[in-house]
Amino acid sequence: MRVIKLAIDAMGGDNAPFSPVKSLELIKDKNFKIFLIGQKSKIEKLLKKNFTFIEIVDCDDFVAMDEKVSSNLLKRNTTMKIAIKFLKEEKVDFSLSAGNTAAFVSIAIAELGMIEGIERPSIGVLFPNILGGFTVFIDAGANVNPKPTHLFQSSILGSIYAESVFNIKNPKVALLNVGEEESKGDELRKQTYKLLKESKLNFIGNIEGHELFSGKADVIITDGFTGNVVLKTSEGITRSFRTILMKELRKNFIGKLGFFLINKNLKNFVRKADYAEYGGGILLGVNGNVIISHGRSSPRAIYNAIKLGEKIVISNLIEKIKEKKWVLQ
Amino acid sequence: MRVIKLAIDAMGGDNAPFSPVKSLELIKDKNFKIFLIGQKSKIEKLLKKNFTFIEIVDCDDFVAMDEKVSSNLLKRNTTMKIAIKFLKEEKVDFSLSAGNTAAFVSIAIAELGMIEGIERPSIGVLFPNILGGFTVFIDAGANVNPKPTHLFQSSILGSIYAESVFNIKNPKVALLNVGEEESKGDELRKQTYKLLKESKLNFIGNIEGHELFSGKADVIITDGFTGNVVLKTSEGITRSFRTILMKELRKNFIGKLGFFLINKNLKNFVRKADYAEYGGGILLGVNGNVIISHGRSSPRAIYNAIKLGEKIVISNLIEKIKEKKWVLQ
Repeated sequence: MRVIKLAIDAMGGDNAPFSPVKSLELIKDKNFKIFLIGQKSKIEKLLKKNFTFIEIVDCDDFVAMDEKVSSNLLKRNTTMKIAIKFLKEEKVDFSLSAGNTAAFVSIAIAELGMIEGIERPSIGVLFPNILGGFTVFIDAGANVNPKPTHLFQSSILGSIYAESVFNIKNPKVALLNVGEEESKGDELRKQTYKLLKESKLNFIGNIEGHELFSGKADVIITDGFTGNVVLKTSEGITRSFRTILMKELRKNFIGKLGFFLINKNLKNFVRKADYAEYGGGILLGVNGNVIISHGRSSPRAIYNAIKLGEKIVISNLIEKIKEKKWVLQ
Repeated sequence: MRVIKLAIDAMGGDNAPFSPVKSLELIKDKNFKIFLIGQKSKIEKLLKKNFTFIEIVDCDDFVAMDEKVSSNLLKRNTTMKIAIKFLKEEKVDFSLSAGNTAAFVSIAIAELGMIEGIERPSIGVLFPNILGGFTVFIDAGANVNPKPTHLFQSSILGSIYAESVFNIKNPKVALLNVGEEESKGDELRKQTYKLLKESKLNFIGNIEGHELFSGKADVIITDGFTGNVVLKTSEGITRSFRTILMKELRKNFIGKLGFFLINKNLKNFVRKADYAEYGGGILLGVNGNVIISHGRSSPRAIYNAIKLGEKIVISNLIEKIKEKKWVLQ
């Protein structure tokens, strides 16, 4: 059995080092070799057992969640930098952080470089859909000022990702827009539409915001600005809904009783609706497998991200992207 | 008591003429004079009683929901065109349609023109927030390619709208962006941030997607592309949530019993979360009170839109916007 090697930034995320460290207790398989990069003393306090598959790499310097990306930050030997360097040196198959996304993306680009033919990176995340499956949503915020060619290249990467990792044959690709017709949207959308229409991708046209979770498309493309706003809006709504629903249910006795009865189902529901639970995103376009977990990740969410990374490695995603260079012309 | 006069496009919306006509049965006040513009025979079949405050204006031509805006469409004497003409001729205080938004906006601009100092129109809608109040969200889709000055002008309009119609003193204005810092986002955001910061508005900075419903801001500004996507995403999530929640609750007996008990509260909740229920949007910037209802509007939603229109008329919004010309320089 193949051993999957990975590096985890133990200091990244709102709940670090707790979530990254505790995520490892959920691992049942024997086929992992994990480098946990962070403050050794803190990590050891959290790790209850001596896991033979874990190696702690002591590192005191880490990127704060609200730190601005600067050339100085990129020079520092942070936990993120070490995680990416391990990947560059092929010590590991993938690297993962739930920390400062902008910093992690910048370090990854600087150290790994881009795959030939891809100009800009993008972040692909998984949206649950009402059909019970997933939709790959790109870009969650890596490139807020993309050109049509960037969106086009990301569409190809997303299509290969969906096919290679999730076994979706000939994935349906859609462009997020304000209407169905080709003439809709701003210049970016109109030009991207043309590129997609003339390509060999299974382009199904524009898709609107209310259809994001419909399962109509396997891959949905947008710019990093809109993508980030949409993603955070979805999060905000999930949380607000929970608040409003709870308030509504507590209004009267019947509501309270009903709430008591459905509490477990409700938790299931909120978990399902929370995309953070699906292991977060992949940084598409860089020359290496980089997994970006949500800042608010629970141990379960990071565990899911590790399992996603495993699937990506086994599918040989990077090699498949490189093989398809012809499609990028 | 002042009589509020209005024109309703009886043929606009997915449920037309049912919703526009049936909305009038909810009106209890005596102070309305309503011109219902549409196919007389169909309207009369739906109207159970003879309401003295309603006058049917027979018109057979109306804009289909999926019709493309063209110069020919603008020339036709459609129900929308008549509703806007009544406003232009000061026969009514406001006009309302739940029909094809792009067509209604185009007709309104062509017939009414813009208020001096405002270059482009924008659509302001109301978001419920978890504090129990509302946030004015601009632009829901009138201008998908705005310049920084357009967003700035819309911010002023939104601020006057919130203060004048909802009695919010010195409304807190925020810019929807991908991060809190001034340096975040694309060029449009950076330049708009500068204009807002240097203005006399109560600008509180950037706000992220997950805070849209937090009540932190009274007015949230974004471009019509992002705004439209965010709005439709919110709708899609509300509906998907309902589907997923129902499924989850029907999984076992306890869930079913709980669901039975909370059904009424749940309906309340879904209604609260549905922005369509709040009467839709106002077309800001044109020289007249134009109310845009959601295509899926129920009679209740259109009734709410009528009540919103009444509030707008009574507050003298247009006059207040014109008075504040100094702020637009």
